[in-house]
Amino acid sequence: MQFNNNHITTVHMIVVMQKSATKEMANHVLQTIENHGLRGEAMFGDQRTAIGVIGDKNKLDEGNLSRLPGVKEILLVSKPYKKVSREYKPENSIVKVGNVEFGNKKPVIIAGPCGVESEEQIITIAKGVKQLGAEMLRGGAFKPRTSPYSFQGMQEDGLKLLAQARKETGLPIVTELISIEHIPLFEKYDIDMIQLGARNMQNFDLIKKAAKTGRPILLKRGMSATVEEFLLAAEYILNEGNKNVVLCERGIRTFEQSTRNLLDLNSLALIKEISHLPIIADPSHAAGRYDLVAPLALGALATGANGIIVEVHNKPDEALSDGKQSLTFDSFREMMEQLRTMHILNGNN
Amino acid sequence: MQFNNNHITTVHMIVVMQKSATKEMANHVLQTIENHGLRGEAMFGDQRTAIGVIGDKNKLDEGNLSRLPGVKEILLVSKPYKKVSREYKPENSIVKVGNVEFGNKKPVIIAGPCGVESEEQIITIAKGVKQLGAEMLRGGAFKPRTSPYSFQGMQEDGLKLLAQARKETGLPIVTELISIEHIPLFEKYDIDMIQLGARNMQNFDLIKKAAKTGRPILLKRGMSATVEEFLLAAEYILNEGNKNVVLCERGIRTFEQSTRNLLDLNSLALIKEISHLPIIADPSHAAGRYDLVAPLALGALATGANGIIVEVHNKPDEALSDGKQSLTFDSFREMMEQLRTMHILNGNN
Amino acid sequence: MQFNNNHITTVHMIVVMQKSATKEMANHVLQTIENHGLRGEAMFGDQRTAIGVIGDKNKLDEGNLSRLPGVKEILLVSKPYKKVSREYKPENSIVKVGNVEFGNKKPVIIAGPCGVESEEQIITIAKGVKQLGAEMLRGGAFKPRTSPYSFQGMQEDGLKLLAQARKETGLPIVTELISIEHIPLFEKYDIDMIQLGARNMQNFDLIKKAAKTGRPILLKRGMSATVEEFLLAAEYILNEGNKNVVLCERGIRTFEQSTRNLLDLNSLALIKEISHLPIIADPSHAAGRYDLVAPLALGALATGANGIIVEVHNKPDEALSDGKQSLTFDSFREMMEQLRTMHILNGNN
Amino acid sequence: MQFNNNHITTVHMIVVMQKSATKEMANHVLQTIENHGLRGEAMFGDQRTAIGVIGDKNKLDEGNLSRLPGVKEILLVSKPYKKVSREYKPENSIVKVGNVEFGNKKPVIIAGPCGVESEEQIITIAKGVKQLGAEMLRGGAFKPRTSPYSFQGMQEDGLKLLAQARKETGLPIVTELISIEHIPLFEKYDIDMIQLGARNMQNFDLIKKAAKTGRPILLKRGMSATVEEFLLAAEYILNEGNKNVVLCERGIRTFEQSTRNLLDLNSLALIKEISHLPIIADPSHAAGRYDLVAPLALGALATGANGIIVEVHNKPDEALSDGKQSLTFDSFREMMEQLRTMHILNGNN
Repeated sequence: MQFNNNHITTVHMIVVMQKSATKEMANHVLQTIENHGLRGEAMFGDQRTAIGVIGDKNKLDEGNLSRLPGVKEILLVSKPYKKVSREYKPENSIVKVGNVEFGNKKPVIIAGPCGVESEEQIITIAKGVKQLGAEMLRGGAFKPRTSPYSFQGMQEDGLKLLAQARKETGLPIVTELISIEHIPLFEKYDIDMIQLGARNMQNFDLIKKAAKTGRPILLKRGMSATVEEFLLAAEYILNEGNKNVVLCERGIRTFEQSTRNLLDLNSLALIKEISHLPIIADPSHAAGRYDLVAPLALGALATGANGIIVEVHNKPDEALSDGKQSLTFDSFREMMEQLRTMHILNGNN
Repeated sequence: MQFNNNHITTVHMIVVMQKSATKEMANHVLQTIENHGLRGEAMFGDQRTAIGVIGDKNKLDEGNLSRLPGVKEILLVSKPYKKVSREYKPENSIVKVGNVEFGNKKPVIIAGPCGVESEEQIITIAKGVKQLGAEMLRGGAFKPRTSPYSFQGMQEDGLKLLAQARKETGLPIVTELISIEHIPLFEKYDIDMIQLGARNMQNFDLIKKAAKTGRPILLKRGMSATVEEFLLAAEYILNEGNKNVVLCERGIRTFEQSTRNLLDLNSLALIKEISHLPIIADPSHAAGRYDLVAPLALGALATGANGIIVEVHNKPDEALSDGKQSLTFDSFREMMEQLRTMHILNGNN
Repeated sequence: MQFNNNHITTVHMIVVMQKSATKEMANHVLQTIENHGLRGEAMFGDQRTAIGVIGDKNKLDEGNLSRLPGVKEILLVSKPYKKVSREYKPENSIVKVGNVEFGNKKPVIIAGPCGVESEEQIITIAKGVKQLGAEMLRGGAFKPRTSPYSFQGMQEDGLKLLAQARKETGLPIVTELISIEHIPLFEKYDIDMIQLGARNMQNFDLIKKAAKTGRPILLKRGMSATVEEFLLAAEYILNEGNKNVVLCERGIRTFEQSTRNLLDLNSLALIKEISHLPIIADPSHAAGRYDLVAPLALGALATGANGIIVEVHNKPDEALSDGKQSLTFDSFREMMEQLRTMHILNGNN
Repeated sequence: MQFNNNHITTVHMIVVMQKSATKEMANHVLQTIENHGLRGEAMFGDQRTAIGVIGDKNKLDEGNLSRLPGVKEILLVSKPYKKVSREYKPENSIVKVGNVEFGNKKPVIIAGPCGVESEEQIITIAKGVKQLGAEMLRGGAFKPRTSPYSFQGMQEDGLKLLAQARKETGLPIVTELISIEHIPLFEKYDIDMIQLGARNMQNFDLIKKAAKTGRPILLKRGMSATVEEFLLAAEYILNEGNKNVVLCERGIRTFEQSTRNLLDLNSLALIKEISHLPIIADPSHAAGRYDLVAPLALGALATGANGIIVEVHNKPDEALSDGKQSLTFDSFREMMEQLRTMHILNGNN
């Protein structure tokens, strides 16, 4: 059997007893904790007893205690992640992709089309966004589509065109990986940064094999992933020995559906506190409509995002995917000017 | 029976027929629409027929058609709100409270404690936040508390102290109304702006009676209210003849509970497009913890909020409510400086 | 100042310290706890310390500790409700409304139209549902409508017709209260059970005044109320001395919007465990479409609901509200037969 | 470029124009629709115009129209799925796994441990649940775990033990596939039914390759997947030529977190109407605690589920995963008896 040998000795659970629980029941819980090789400490109130569980968290699971007589509920104290946390590494991590650095005060602007559609399209856009201030190029070659009948991407040809766009502009490229079988192609075209998409945030097989390439990873948050699950997905990458992880908040799914998703700046601000990893925002997928992309980009960067990734298209009305949410060159230029006015681009805020 | 006489002639529904629906079924739907005094227009596809419903929307409800044979579903085209929409009034509304104006480029900073606790507390805080740049004072006298055992506010004494703080600082005051029985007290102390809280966003009795006072209303979004429901609650106020409505996005409830609520900047940006009403943000309730208030305030104002309302306390560790999320004078000062660096306070962005 | 004198001595919080916290920081937290008149007990792990807080929970709020140096987070152990809990009262409460009893094994079937529309309508429906096995009559006289332009109910005339329907059928009546000003009318027509609707679940002013009438209350869960908030709203009623509370799960709001709401049977099953109050389900509002009402009613009763409240209309295609989700007499009959086949109606399961 | 050749001619969008839109703008939209080879039909109201789009839906995306002058919003009429829908195939599909049939009136009971842990464990449980009425055996060999430090399953040894348990009991087996690299092992041990888990519901690479094995698939709904996304994931399988798909509702993620997930019986009831595929429920993962599993199982089957999959363990207090939510043999027996009392097991309801 496979067990991870990551022994951590800490206060990791609090067993809350029912008001009606007897002293014998509390003793039984304490005994069970000791039988598993941990230490229990009881706190007695007039009405209720609570028992702290101290020791190696891998030796005892809440399921081992939850059914004991008199147990009301179990509170988890320790977080299951470790290497991604600021308690583990207090200073900010800097992730380098070519000459670009994520995690500094200066935010990184990544721009490009949703999908690579043709040589003319990707070269035009790459040159356009570079001229307007973007430092990296995005573009999908393999597209994970909700419907089997939607455009699935140009596949290997898309990777080839991205590499060509990089050659002509010098911009490092980031593109999504959706199958472990494509990893050799990502090596062949020397893709600078591998994007793991929202739908695959808990595809641990893909995550582990992408991590093993050693290439920088852009890990997008799942549509309904909690902050803890998001950080644990990143923990999988660090646990494979790859420290080059940039997180990406791209909007979550809520009851409010007047826009495609909802940009979760609360979590972004929280993650900056509790993790040392850089985190950027994707206002295009969060907004789902072009007219809200710039306001959300400004908000995310003002809140403290280490960068943004935005969709820009030279002819959004003819885009094969996500045309609805793509910026034109003009609207991208206008957004960049607002960022300069707010002293955000140079990282002075 | 009470019916509202608001006749609007528009395309207001699309009836989508099942693929197996016969021509007779489509004709029956058309006939039913005409029987209610509206016009139906059928669009025939090879596989599916859809029927537009045109006319006075008060004469026909989707429930009147949804059971007819062959009907698959009904899509609503027209929105149920009217006076709050930008289609009705294209230019921004400006709401004046004393000398303060909501809706201009310059955002309004409202600050103060969660609840009024004593004369010394409210006067100290009022003077402190004024000196640091706040233009209005907040403070609860009547507190709607989730638990019957929590501090319920100083009641009338709280209103009296707020009026005194206004006298000493010149800051207009905003405070929450939770019962129609308190309206005379709000008149007695000449409360400048009436806050309607998140829990009462669909307490239409309270909304209508508050609206009738003619005083400016700060309407907070309900914890799970959609943009449409939020605007309809405001429509109730405008429909009573009171145009002085300022909306407030204060965070919504989602699956993500690492923070108290989730500031919905998507909806804020959207509402600025589709409504002429000013909208501010409440980063304190959205964050629920003091260390995330400033990042969210910056994000909200950069996204385009017409102001913010933040909790500031001189001794947050001793606050009777919401101490966990209150800024100190020092952290409030620091936030104001960041806003100045970003050229946000003067409305230049 | 108003404080509630409800002193409870219990283990009520766990203060989790940061890994980097020093012994002095832990001592400072312990000292602060003692300064507020409570007891602190520290549990030391190799990596992390946690401190239990024991004593009167009204003397110390988490906000009083959350900012102390070295504090990472605070876990709440004790629940804020009391009188609604099974720990307080282990046996099921039985709530009587006329001859009907909620809380027994036999579930209660409440049926009737969304709104009272005319004498002919309400009398026809009351007789119809009685004949088919319903034991109580529902029907709205005052309707809280999301839009100010929707049908607002027949008001006092509606109450009068409900009383008449009761007289002709013997069925006790339940109808919604939306303003404290209508309470005298509810007394005048001797309304058997007062419904407090989802939109008013945290309208504490209305709740307290309805509770004071002493009449049985049907308290509907708010659209995004947690189980804890729902139980605390009921606690407000019990705290006013009125023990006749029946809870109603009516569907919550989630990301999934293919149906109007989502019937939360998890919470219903949980509440039956942790509270002694009866709880029924409203499959009509949960489904939002007539064809899903019966399957959800069966599911709710099989899960253990103490009853259901369903909308039935003699002419649903002409209903002034909620026609889309109303059962016809035929579909109501069919549902009742399925319940008998499953041995649910007689409470044998 | 890869395009799917699935040409459907139908009414597929409604373009809603702004009130201020001119006749020229409407004509421009109509012209654009025609330029893409489709037909537009305008419906003119006094205040607003709407334009139906009729033709091959693959030729025009909403993004191609959403930016045209005067366009307010676009409503989608046609659903993107096809082969899973009841409009495509009106009669229920029956999926056979060994002698077991999903989709008949008689529901299928699948039981077994969360994970295979040892020969003694899986054989004991297999024999136990068979004796109590289960018709299929579940058990994880490869476990997708949120944390890299959790038990990851017995891997190939687990598959071998499942095959042995099948041999000794005759129960067909279902177990989860998490990597395309494991498919040869699933062939080697002749796994009767491949489970695709919630975290992989949009891992289209895994879905397509699992589908190609031709083996029956148990497709679990993603934690925040909409009904439409769930059906589209199934459409991927049917589109590969594999018709043996059983859907599984296992609880979704909402704001309510008093239980692990929330069993969505609304969607289950809806899917039974709009799709011909069988759908079962997983009350164990929905509840997350053993005491709520039986009530939810009863509710799901009463609502119309074609079966349930439940976790049963001989020693749940010592389970390596999910002990908290596993039934004992005693509680499983009790649940089966309740199902018999309700005439559910024989499919008579």
